[in-house]
Amino acid sequence: ATAFRASEHQHIRYNPLQDEWVLVSAHRMKRPWQGQVEPLLLNTVPRHDPHNPLCPGATRANGEVNPHYDGTFLFDNDFPALQPDAPSPGPSDHPLFQAEAARGVCKVMCFHPWSDVTLPLMSVPEIRAVIDAWASVTEELGAQYPWVQIFENKGAMMGCSNPHPHCQVWASSFLPDVAQREERSQRAYQSQHGEPLLMEYGHQELLRKERLVLTSEHWLVLVPFWAVWPFQTLLLPRRHVRRLPELTPTERDDLASIMKKLLTKYDNLFETSFPYSMGWHGAPTGSEAGANWDHWQLHAHYYPPLLRSATVRKFMVGYEMLAQAQRDLTPEQAAERLRALPEVHYCLGQK
Amino acid sequence: ATAFRASEHQHIRYNPLQDEWVLVSAHRMKRPWQGQVEPLLLNTVPRHDPHNPLCPGATRANGEVNPHYDGTFLFDNDFPALQPDAPSPGPSDHPLFQAEAARGVCKVMCFHPWSDVTLPLMSVPEIRAVIDAWASVTEELGAQYPWVQIFENKGAMMGCSNPHPHCQVWASSFLPDVAQREERSQRAYQSQHGEPLLMEYGHQELLRKERLVLTSEHWLVLVPFWAVWPFQTLLLPRRHVRRLPELTPTERDDLASIMKKLLTKYDNLFETSFPYSMGWHGAPTGSEAGANWDHWQLHAHYYPPLLRSATVRKFMVGYEMLAQAQRDLTPEQAAERLRALPEVHYCLGQK
Ligand SMILES: O=P(O)(O)O[C@H]1O[C@H](CO)[C@@H](O)[C@H](O)[C@H]1O
Ligand SMILES: O=P(O)(O)O[C@H]1O[C@H](CO)[C@@H](O)[C@H](O)[C@H]1O
Repeated sequence: ATAFRASEHQHIRYNPLQDEWVLVSAHRMKRPWQGQVEPLLLNTVPRHDPHNPLCPGATRANGEVNPHYDGTFLFDNDFPALQPDAPSPGPSDHPLFQAEAARGVCKVMCFHPWSDVTLPLMSVPEIRAVIDAWASVTEELGAQYPWVQIFENKGAMMGCSNPHPHCQVWASSFLPDVAQREERSQRAYQSQHGEPLLMEYGHQELLRKERLVLTSEHWLVLVPFWAVWPFQTLLLPRRHVRRLPELTPTERDDLASIMKKLLTKYDNLFETSFPYSMGWHGAPTGSEAGANWDHWQLHAHYYPPLLRSATVRKFMVGYEMLAQAQRDLTPEQAAERLRALPEVHYCLGQK
Repeated sequence: ATAFRASEHQHIRYNPLQDEWVLVSAHRMKRPWQGQVEPLLLNTVPRHDPHNPLCPGATRANGEVNPHYDGTFLFDNDFPALQPDAPSPGPSDHPLFQAEAARGVCKVMCFHPWSDVTLPLMSVPEIRAVIDAWASVTEELGAQYPWVQIFENKGAMMGCSNPHPHCQVWASSFLPDVAQREERSQRAYQSQHGEPLLMEYGHQELLRKERLVLTSEHWLVLVPFWAVWPFQTLLLPRRHVRRLPELTPTERDDLASIMKKLLTKYDNLFETSFPYSMGWHGAPTGSEAGANWDHWQLHAHYYPPLLRSATVRKFMVGYEMLAQAQRDLTPEQAAERLRALPEVHYCLGQK
């Protein structure tokens, strides 16, 4: 019998955090690509555009004028998917027709006054200011809402409709689907094994090493064993931290520095401004914040779509939507490629 | 207090088939769109291209020459994600690092010898031949494998790398993730309510009417109460049918006709060849096929990405990937728009 090699032999892997499986078929990278290629984006974003509603001093859709901010800037999304006061749909009349109330707020956070920078091109202190703003908004909205979802859609490929560096914050009166899955899995793991799932997972990855991308005094970046996106990563604190606001000043500085390194590697991989969606997950907040959430470990997920080059992405379509996620290179191969990349940004090295 | 209106007030809905929630925020349709627009595809596909590996008489990547087929044509995918003989990864050494064997086959099925047609432009008897081929391949691969996933990625936007009308069939030695969810939900519903979930669901939608798109003697098409994609539909037989091969000749003819109507409406919606991923789900097959699968009802899911026009799609990104699916119009509004569209294809009406 042939010996199993992950890079040659398809197999399935289990995601214990989100209770999902992925099909890993690394030999698929050999197939030629004849499908859609994405437009190559030229870096033609002006530093300041008075008509861009995210810029300092610009007028937004609701007529409000942005301040001349010089760091981060947080404001209410002018087209929020969640509003604080929607009435409830009332009781359902049938088990197959269940609807429930949803309330919340949606905010936008600009990372920097300039439109022509991205996080990896910002300085470590500037990134640190973003982290502080993430912690504050979690605290502020978490006082009222059980879930505060911070996420960044970067790049047109990820549905981002404005090139100005920014993220969004959607706080909701309910635990969203993915949060519910992570809650269930982490709670079950803790009760079965007596420690937080992601603490043990980070510990194991430090021992096994093959999926590590970056390590620092306080943080780890790795390609999870169960990654679905080609170059997906998981960013974890080494210490047991439940939520962003608990991070110490030293941990925040160290986070800013490891984020800059990770995002620089991402940009360097295909020498492009690497698109992704990323977001933070931490223990639920709101009125139950005081309960025991020790099974939670703070973490960020990075989901970048590119597979082969700056213009060829992985499509999560037919089989993935109807059956199961499928990936075309192993997480170990992805980690190895990311590890090998320089920590100096290709745009800065060129000068 | 304001009375609840689904089209004005955000709320969450439950998908009892796949155990997931969706956030419905219909007021979001009011926001302007400044993000990526997709390239408008001109219909410049030649009817026959000897270099297209899906065409009759063409040579494929492995050197095989396609027959001069004049109906459907089924062959092995030259770059299969699943192969019949992969060795097993062996037992896992830790609960957070679980991998399992995956075996299977991947096939490609051409719908028609011409590259410049799509299902809605084919005749009802030609579509009927596709349905027969789907039933046969389910029977053939289902003899060995527990899950036979038939799916079509249509359009470059859905990662389709070849314009020739075709679908794929991936049969696997395992029940994929989505199949497992549907298995769990349908089994639980049957044991609690004594009837198949989707039989009762179809029955309810016939009574409620507001989400119906098309009905025929043997089939229903509706926008499910829990749809996530803007114009997502569910295609259901009226009779309790567990798998494609069980369909009678009359039911197959009727299916061909309702598919043509649905796909014509889809193309008419934005006057474009409407992209989507679609696929069939039926009771598991393989060595356990003889067990009791009466809780299963055959169905097809259509997942089309377009939202506002032929070039503006819905992005399932940040919030959707990190937290929960979100939609920008209600399923009832989508059904109403689809219902109102003509059943004659805009390309055929123009002559
Ligand atoms: O097999 P194809 O058409 O080349 O590939 C397409 O469908 C597959 C199955 O959904 C996906 O895994 C690929 O990402 C997609 O590009
Ligand atoms: O709010 P934006 O940036 O306009 O919109 C983007 O992110 C949202 C949250 O992930 C998605 O629902 C939209 O489909 C996407 O285009």
